[in-house]
Amino acid sequence: MNSSQAVVLFILIIFSSLIPSTFPESILEFPDPISSSHRKILKDDLTYCKSWSYTVEANDANPWKQVPIRCTQFVKDYFAGGQYLSDSNFVADQSLGFATTVNVAAGDDAKDVWIFDIDETLLSNLPYYADHNFGTEIFDETTFNEWADSAQCPGLPASLKLYNNLLDLGFRIVLLTGRAESQRNGTVKNLLSAGYRSWERLILRRPSDHGTTAVEYKSKSRMKLEAEGYRIHGNSGDQWSDLYGSPMATRSFKLPNPMYYIA
Amino acid sequence: MNSSQAVVLFILIIFSSLIPSTFPESILEFPDPISSSHRKILKDDLTYCKSWSYTVEANDANPWKQVPIRCTQFVKDYFAGGQYLSDSNFVADQSLGFATTVNVAAGDDAKDVWIFDIDETLLSNLPYYADHNFGTEIFDETTFNEWADSAQCPGLPASLKLYNNLLDLGFRIVLLTGRAESQRNGTVKNLLSAGYRSWERLILRRPSDHGTTAVEYKSKSRMKLEAEGYRIHGNSGDQWSDLYGSPMATRSFKLPNPMYYIA
Repeated sequence: MNSSQAVVLFILIIFSSLIPSTFPESILEFPDPISSSHRKILKDDLTYCKSWSYTVEANDANPWKQVPIRCTQFVKDYFAGGQYLSDSNFVADQSLGFATTVNVAAGDDAKDVWIFDIDETLLSNLPYYADHNFGTEIFDETTFNEWADSAQCPGLPASLKLYNNLLDLGFRIVLLTGRAESQRNGTVKNLLSAGYRSWERLILRRPSDHGTTAVEYKSKSRMKLEAEGYRIHGNSGDQWSDLYGSPMATRSFKLPNPMYYIA
Repeated sequence: MNSSQAVVLFILIIFSSLIPSTFPESILEFPDPISSSHRKILKDDLTYCKSWSYTVEANDANPWKQVPIRCTQFVKDYFAGGQYLSDSNFVADQSLGFATTVNVAAGDDAKDVWIFDIDETLLSNLPYYADHNFGTEIFDETTFNEWADSAQCPGLPASLKLYNNLLDLGFRIVLLTGRAESQRNGTVKNLLSAGYRSWERLILRRPSDHGTTAVEYKSKSRMKLEAEGYRIHGNSGDQWSDLYGSPMATRSFKLPNPMYYIA
């Protein structure tokens, strides 16, 4: 190695230590390595699980409580095999494609908004779900909130890239999450450590929102934003309850989530 | 063969000749048999095409004009490999699951409606698209209308079963299609030959609907139905433009269609 190579290597080492924790390959390498023969999904199961996944993502299956047991390996493979990252990238590309067509105002009229949900949209709970059989167990609020409060969720790389591109285009970013107001500090800490910054507002469920569905709570929040003069162009979420309800954004972007359903 | 076996065989032959043309296996066996080595989709293409298909079915890709060339085989395999029929069955099962929860009124108040789109919902244009590279060609209205007017579309078996189940439950069926009023006779002939019967109304585009998008035309039609006192519980369509727009049905059911997009 000559001295200029050494300088480049030194710079690379310094920079890589500064890169925020986004979506390390390690969380896609699950703790229990399974031999390829065990991993093979039966043809019948594969057809079934693909159809199940289709109805989940297109909002035909509604409501649903658990991933079918026979689809555990299917869901695991979806994350481990690169399809999840590919699908996420595709959705982010479509989102950015639309965003670039929006005439974004600056100055006093800087009210052009893009809304993001948080869980499975900006941050990933995959490490938690990998420990809980990928959604085949009934959701347990206590252990999930303990995990969320630990602020260890990695960021989704496709969403982080989109997020930064939208900031560059001049969009105001509103984060609208089903997490509770009491989880604000942990959520902010986690968002920052995953590389997100400069959001206009972080809206969490207040005690007065208790008992409302996600569709009701999120629609009402969008209505308030519009009443304040914000123009909601894009809305990104992994649940249809992030996107449906009046008013809707001009364009809604459904991110994949085969692990759980929220009404 | 003894005489009772001969009688059974005779009855089977008579009955099979009466079964309406629904979805013969032959339309899934495409005319150009391709060797398995040629049929193999490259891993990169498979990941790409799965992601493309995800964004199409979840309405993230919007608008789009053609199936990507590299996904021709993927789309072909989707139909030929049984996944399309499986997905269609899953959606129909979800639809029926919801339908059975509806309190359907009888007599003078028999106004509980289920809306069906026609193309790729009740009837399949797969034979046409198999001759036109499965959506990788730009849509050609002239040849497509010639095909549609020939009234040879097979029925989708999952939809026909659902349709009959809904009639049995007491639902009024409204058919709401983007086909033109001038195509009424051919459409009725095709619906009947595919086994559909007893619809309450068949709504086609009139000249006054010319120039409106499918979302506008179909929302307006749903609004008129509601003004007449109909309660729209379910809506089945292969395009988001069949389902979106105000008013929406209580539940909307998206059927798969990786071949074309209608705004």
